[in-house]
Amino acid sequence: MNKPLKFPTSQFVPETGNASESVDKTDFTRLCAAEHPADLAVQFSEFDMEQVADIFTGLSPDCCADVLVHMDYDDQREIARHLPDDILARIIAHMSSDDRVDLIQSMPDERGEGLLHLLAKTEREDIRRLSSYEEDTAGAIMTSEYATLSPNFTARLAIDKLRLEAPDKETIYYAYVIDTERRLIGQVSLRELILAKPNARIEDIMRRDPIRANVHDDQEAVARQMAKYDLLAIPVTNGNDAMVGIITFDDVHDVIEEEATEDFHRMGSISSGTGGDDLVDIGLKDASSWLLIQKRLPWLLALVFMNIFSGAGIAFYEETIQTTVALVFFLPLLIGSGGNAGAQSATLMVRALAIGDVVMKDWLRLIGKEVGIALCIGACMGVAVSFIGIFRGGPDVAVIVSLAMVCVVLFGSLLGLSLPFLLTHFKLDPATASAPLVTSIADIGGVVIYFAIATWYLGLGTIA
Amino acid sequence: MNKPLKFPTSQFVPETGNASESVDKTDFTRLCAAEHPADLAVQFSEFDMEQVADIFTGLSPDCCADVLVHMDYDDQREIARHLPDDILARIIAHMSSDDRVDLIQSMPDERGEGLLHLLAKTEREDIRRLSSYEEDTAGAIMTSEYATLSPNFTARLAIDKLRLEAPDKETIYYAYVIDTERRLIGQVSLRELILAKPNARIEDIMRRDPIRANVHDDQEAVARQMAKYDLLAIPVTNGNDAMVGIITFDDVHDVIEEEATEDFHRMGSISSGTGGDDLVDIGLKDASSWLLIQKRLPWLLALVFMNIFSGAGIAFYEETIQTTVALVFFLPLLIGSGGNAGAQSATLMVRALAIGDVVMKDWLRLIGKEVGIALCIGACMGVAVSFIGIFRGGPDVAVIVSLAMVCVVLFGSLLGLSLPFLLTHFKLDPATASAPLVTSIADIGGVVIYFAIATWYLGLGTIA
Repeated sequence: MNKPLKFPTSQFVPETGNASESVDKTDFTRLCAAEHPADLAVQFSEFDMEQVADIFTGLSPDCCADVLVHMDYDDQREIARHLPDDILARIIAHMSSDDRVDLIQSMPDERGEGLLHLLAKTEREDIRRLSSYEEDTAGAIMTSEYATLSPNFTARLAIDKLRLEAPDKETIYYAYVIDTERRLIGQVSLRELILAKPNARIEDIMRRDPIRANVHDDQEAVARQMAKYDLLAIPVTNGNDAMVGIITFDDVHDVIEEEATEDFHRMGSISSGTGGDDLVDIGLKDASSWLLIQKRLPWLLALVFMNIFSGAGIAFYEETIQTTVALVFFLPLLIGSGGNAGAQSATLMVRALAIGDVVMKDWLRLIGKEVGIALCIGACMGVAVSFIGIFRGGPDVAVIVSLAMVCVVLFGSLLGLSLPFLLTHFKLDPATASAPLVTSIADIGGVVIYFAIATWYLGLGTIA
Repeated sequence: MNKPLKFPTSQFVPETGNASESVDKTDFTRLCAAEHPADLAVQFSEFDMEQVADIFTGLSPDCCADVLVHMDYDDQREIARHLPDDILARIIAHMSSDDRVDLIQSMPDERGEGLLHLLAKTEREDIRRLSSYEEDTAGAIMTSEYATLSPNFTARLAIDKLRLEAPDKETIYYAYVIDTERRLIGQVSLRELILAKPNARIEDIMRRDPIRANVHDDQEAVARQMAKYDLLAIPVTNGNDAMVGIITFDDVHDVIEEEATEDFHRMGSISSGTGGDDLVDIGLKDASSWLLIQKRLPWLLALVFMNIFSGAGIAFYEETIQTTVALVFFLPLLIGSGGNAGAQSATLMVRALAIGDVVMKDWLRLIGKEVGIALCIGACMGVAVSFIGIFRGGPDVAVIVSLAMVCVVLFGSLLGLSLPFLLTHFKLDPATASAPLVTSIADIGGVVIYFAIATWYLGLGTIA
């Protein structure tokens, strides 16, 4: 932002007392006109939501709707909870169709039903229809406020129609050409319309067979499609190819951010869930301790039980350890290195799969490449660690530790590479191959490889 | 996509022989008209780039420019390398200004200079000016093809001007109002223009003081600003508030994706670099083994040397270990749990800092919350592990392991939370607080905490 935004909080909202009596609502009406709704939303989010609801009762429903959609889902819900039904219904009527569906779905069922009955019939039916699509699909994020044209319109008529409809549409920069059965047959941009001769027929200037999404497509796939083709908006059709909505570029920003955050969290072994109260929606700062424990504990406990196996591995080699205690000094280093190498290759692979840079069929080729890389990295690390080995445990330990290092790095790297592919193959999210999971499996392998090599090598030594 | 794209590769491009003689270029001209450039780019990327360059010589520069900007940077460079100067210059003239700057910057200096001299003077100066901005700033990703209006135009005149200029502008959906010194004073959307009365003056309908970015702003900050305000395009101004460019929504998709990938890689301890040959630009599939080794080895070696400390920690407690070898069974489990808990909180924190959900001043409050969460998680894990402890090492070991578990989880969690903040404080990228780094530090702490508790507890036991 080029200029700092000042919001005289202390002046408007007293620390104590009944807010509704002391807040001067006309000042907010002035702010509504002067400030961007996104900025107002940031500033309102510092308030108590009951007070914000109270301020809303004095503002135009139009302004409230604009500010509301820029607030956190949690804050939206809180404000809605404190607003009387009639005022809330008027605000909802001014929201775009995708945003109001989200808000109504977050309410208790009876309240939502009550509100629906305060809305006009067409709006009510629109909300019911949009609510019926599964979460994270194109249908769930699309809006039904798009502009349509008939193929036999002229460019002049089309521009006139768009001008008339502009206030109610999410975008008028693309208009969609539909036939009598609402089947999507073409698309024309406002740019093309104003460049065309006024008498040109839409049929002749439209782009036929525009790129489209299906209502049931995954929202992430739609986001990538829009990014690939640099689209401002994408039309959404149902199974009969009838047009049912559009998704605009601003919805897609949120989707890309949200999916990346989810992948991040999975990589860090933080459980992901669905539903309005998910960590991705709420944000870390506002998440309750209880929610965070729910997200973190299950994975940690699962990893504890996996580690029983590495304990068992060590117990199996108890004798070797008792002979050469110095081997234990290198245990954290070795299993750590295997885990780290695995975490690296898993990270690379999960991200590459997420952005579509790598697909299933690349697996075999990548395995070959990874073997080369891991052997090279392992050899470098083996040499490095052999110096420490000589210093701390003598030449025997140095040989064992270096050998084990190469094997452990190779094992970890191949594990980190393969696990995401394996999960994809079984239709699971590859990001579940989190660093902690890869590390834990690499731990078990590392322990067994290390002590097996030690036992073998020391056995040789005894014979010699 | 709703329909599968067929590209008759075998028909057009023979396995052997001189491609230029046998490729029927008219077929590609037909494809150029029928297919979206993004799809053509995907299909061309399967070809040998020398052949693609050859095909380009037979296509219109316009179509080539469209396809080229949708290809990987590496492929772009390869094609450019095989194209004669005159044809390449004509293609470049059809590219948008941000894209051609990227292409010319990727070439050897002499070739770039030679090409510049084949372009018109205004284009040459434009490229020189855009090239002067530092990488990853607003200046580096902006384009200079924006529409400007004078404040005393009428809406009708403005629309006529936009109509005339449309073919050369990146977007005509926003026009920027500048004064005689090119200072940005307002902004008007095409939507507002066609809704306005034809005789309305721009001055009266424009939005004053539009949201803007500075040429030196970080590209990620600009991307977030655009997402926050749902902007199709953002004007870029220099220090004197003079308008110098715009950034459009499609550039921002790439930025968000790129920055998320970089953060991902850092979290996985994969070194990040700058420059055209970085892993983020190239993609995992096409990266050379050598590049990957360069990215991965330095961190792994650094972590090896950090692990020397955990080895030293174990050596210090050698006596305790020799008395109770069963303690070693739990070593991987304990240090693993501390590392995992740390990786979780680091992941949450790095992502929250990246998307701006959490800022520096939240640190103290979050520490307090994290202590509560970590104690609760640690207690649960302590109880879980005590059962294994009794079974594998007797009651003494069970008590030691449970106690150590609580302390280790607490230590790891606080470390994972604090490290990203600490890095931010020292102006370093918080994503460098990668899972492997946190895990390695947690390892050292875990070893010391575990054996210190064991020595203390067993010492008590001997006295009793």
